[in-house]
Amino acid sequence: MIMSLVHITRRERFSAAHKLSRADWSPERNLEVFGKCSSPNWHGHNYELWVTVKGEPSTDTGFVVDLSELGRIIHDRVIRHVDHKNIDVDVEFMKGRLSSTENLAIAIWEQLSGPISGIGCALHRIRLKETENNEVEYYG
Amino acid sequence: MIMSLVHITRRERFSAAHKLSRADWSPERNLEVFGKCSSPNWHGHNYELWVTVKGEPSTDTGFVVDLSELGRIIHDRVIRHVDHKNIDVDVEFMKGRLSSTENLAIAIWEQLSGPISGIGCALHRIRLKETENNEVEYYG
Amino acid sequence: MIMSLVHITRRERFSAAHKLSRADWSPERNLEVFGKCSSPNWHGHNYELWVTVKGEPSTDTGFVVDLSELGRIIHDRVIRHVDHKNIDVDVEFMKGRLSSTENLAIAIWEQLSGPISGIGCALHRIRLKETENNEVEYYG
Amino acid sequence: MIMSLVHITRRERFSAAHKLSRADWSPERNLEVFGKCSSPNWHGHNYELWVTVKGEPSTDTGFVVDLSELGRIIHDRVIRHVDHKNIDVDVEFMKGRLSSTENLAIAIWEQLSGPISGIGCALHRIRLKETENNEVEYYG
Amino acid sequence: MIMSLVHITRRERFSAAHKLSRADWSPERNLEVFGKCSSPNWHGHNYELWVTVKGEPSTDTGFVVDLSELGRIIHDRVIRHVDHKNIDVDVEFMKGRLSSTENLAIAIWEQLSGPISGIGCALHRIRLKETENNEVEYYG
Amino acid sequence: MIMSLVHITRRERFSAAHKLSRADWSPERNLEVFGKCSSPNWHGHNYELWVTVKGEPSTDTGFVVDLSELGRIIHDRVIRHVDHKNIDVDVEFMKGRLSSTENLAIAIWEQLSGPISGIGCALHRIRLKETENNEVEYYG
Repeated sequence: MIMSLVHITRRERFSAAHKLSRADWSPERNLEVFGKCSSPNWHGHNYELWVTVKGEPSTDTGFVVDLSELGRIIHDRVIRHVDHKNIDVDVEFMKGRLSSTENLAIAIWEQLSGPISGIGCALHRIRLKETENNEVEYYG
Repeated sequence: MIMSLVHITRRERFSAAHKLSRADWSPERNLEVFGKCSSPNWHGHNYELWVTVKGEPSTDTGFVVDLSELGRIIHDRVIRHVDHKNIDVDVEFMKGRLSSTENLAIAIWEQLSGPISGIGCALHRIRLKETENNEVEYYG
Repeated sequence: MIMSLVHITRRERFSAAHKLSRADWSPERNLEVFGKCSSPNWHGHNYELWVTVKGEPSTDTGFVVDLSELGRIIHDRVIRHVDHKNIDVDVEFMKGRLSSTENLAIAIWEQLSGPISGIGCALHRIRLKETENNEVEYYG
Repeated sequence: MIMSLVHITRRERFSAAHKLSRADWSPERNLEVFGKCSSPNWHGHNYELWVTVKGEPSTDTGFVVDLSELGRIIHDRVIRHVDHKNIDVDVEFMKGRLSSTENLAIAIWEQLSGPISGIGCALHRIRLKETENNEVEYYG
Repeated sequence: MIMSLVHITRRERFSAAHKLSRADWSPERNLEVFGKCSSPNWHGHNYELWVTVKGEPSTDTGFVVDLSELGRIIHDRVIRHVDHKNIDVDVEFMKGRLSSTENLAIAIWEQLSGPISGIGCALHRIRLKETENNEVEYYG
Repeated sequence: MIMSLVHITRRERFSAAHKLSRADWSPERNLEVFGKCSSPNWHGHNYELWVTVKGEPSTDTGFVVDLSELGRIIHDRVIRHVDHKNIDVDVEFMKGRLSSTENLAIAIWEQLSGPISGIGCALHRIRLKETENNEVEYYG
């Protein structure tokens, strides 16, 4: 019996470069579809990432999850690959994908859901904010 | 098959005047029910509006929706009607409704859900913040 | 028929001391499990609390709930017990519970759900932020 | 000898209606000069006000000023006059002045500097934010 | 006689790529001095820029400056050159300068101080925030 | 000749317990003077600390200061002493001082000004925020 399912969220941040541009499209078409995000020499963002997991608090510790352990997983699987990097050039788990915020959130989910299952709770939501006006949520 | 439903949110802002007051009630009753919000010569807020839509990212663009197009709809259907306006006097889509944050969020949903369906995704949530302490969410 | 279920959220804040430490564990084990949160002479936080209730707006007032009344309940049942207090020493409703953010959110839910039912709406969510990087949500 | 001059700031908030419009100008000229701020039926803002005073901390209390007393002065001299009011219609101390953020900050200084001198410290700065993009500072 | 000097601040934002790396240094030395900021394929930020000007409010308008005009100058002289650009590759006014936040703030001052003098007020401060933890202020 | 003095600010955070209470005063007098801050079993805050230094950017690096080195000094001299600690019990550099925000900011200045001189720039300002409504600035 689930008596008290709690969601707990850890915020992390990373700064990265990217652009939205397809090699198989002309510069004109890229500009038409992606606007200033297609600017050829890259631009970048301070991304904010909220990782929400869910579970029942342990009666021993009151914790759904050890947040330090969760933080280590997020750092090992996501942050060290993207922080101060170029998402389109440097990031293995984004190879072959356009670096829209949507696609990046999905890829971060894929990086995290397995390892988080391994520490006794379930990944619930990836929330990724690209600018103060734009953000996405992904629930798997 | 839905493989990757993503929610994407666009934030917009507007500054507007309003009051909470019923013409068919006495000033005393308005004050009793609506408190300082019934102040006769209006007050106002910097409203923050988050419009969340959902859909699958396009394999062509990585986008659930073209955010510029979404922005244009929000501007055309909501912002230009309410920004630097009096909600109770100037706003056609609020005629006959008390301008509580709840009612305003419902009216904004009604303004947006049709046009957003027209661009290939679905409106998921209106979140409207009146002050840093008060906000509403509406899911249709 | 529910035509327009709206969620409305009230934010409150409190500043409190606490620690994470079990009397039946050695200092070493407490340190190992709870890290710096087990520091013996307490530490503290500025907690932010968002209480979300749901209901249909009244046709008379446009309100799901009178926010002043909701505020009074939150103050009477939660804030006056925890603000400028030590959660582990001073707070009756946390007696016998470790003051993890998870447990504190659950206890706040228990304090509020009955009284909120008494004013004609339903408690939907407790969101409690301990630091800018850590927060929990509880839906009962 | 001043050994340790400290500045301490108290934030307050108020929600008010106003417009920028001169009765001695045509609507066209008001629109040309004041843009959408001249909209005839008012608009409004959530203003944030930071009042900074300076002085030496008391050796008895460690305080430059009793913040509760400072808060009472700000409430009595400013907030109760402007919160949930129309700055152009309801506020005695703005009579005859255009309600630009600049003029409002100056008027708030005038309301506060005398009473603050009376509690043993000196008003240093009024900071007034009208929207997240616009704010003024006034030093007397 | 200056009776009421007021400072007014306009916030703008831009998203840009950059890196800290000198062509005349080895990758090892760049890494040692600039750390992860020297990552070869660029990274990026959401920069926040606050431009503060000072002057006396006009008795005609209550304005120190027409904020729309100030906004146009900031856009024309700064934002359109850096937003969704690579500061090190695309920006003429940063040619030959390392793109530290310090140097970028100085260059923005140089871009703005002349044109702002031309609209009857004086540039007072450039405040530039690179991340939520790092920012610079420059007073000319 | 100083051609371009720049101020650069590093933000850090710490969570700590404290109270305002004098052992040589009765509980009644402590309550009268310090209000709820005198609550005997402590309370606490998430403090935000902004450390501003000033200097000329190096022509070699564009930096006023190596922010990593500045961060290490702040951590070594301040954060590790106060984070997850009780300011009144655990912190050597606050011994014998009431833990008002004013006094804490002065003590942090004293901890940092010498070591910061040692890395080639000058401490300009300590800004310390106790809650979202209260903060102090100290310039030495």
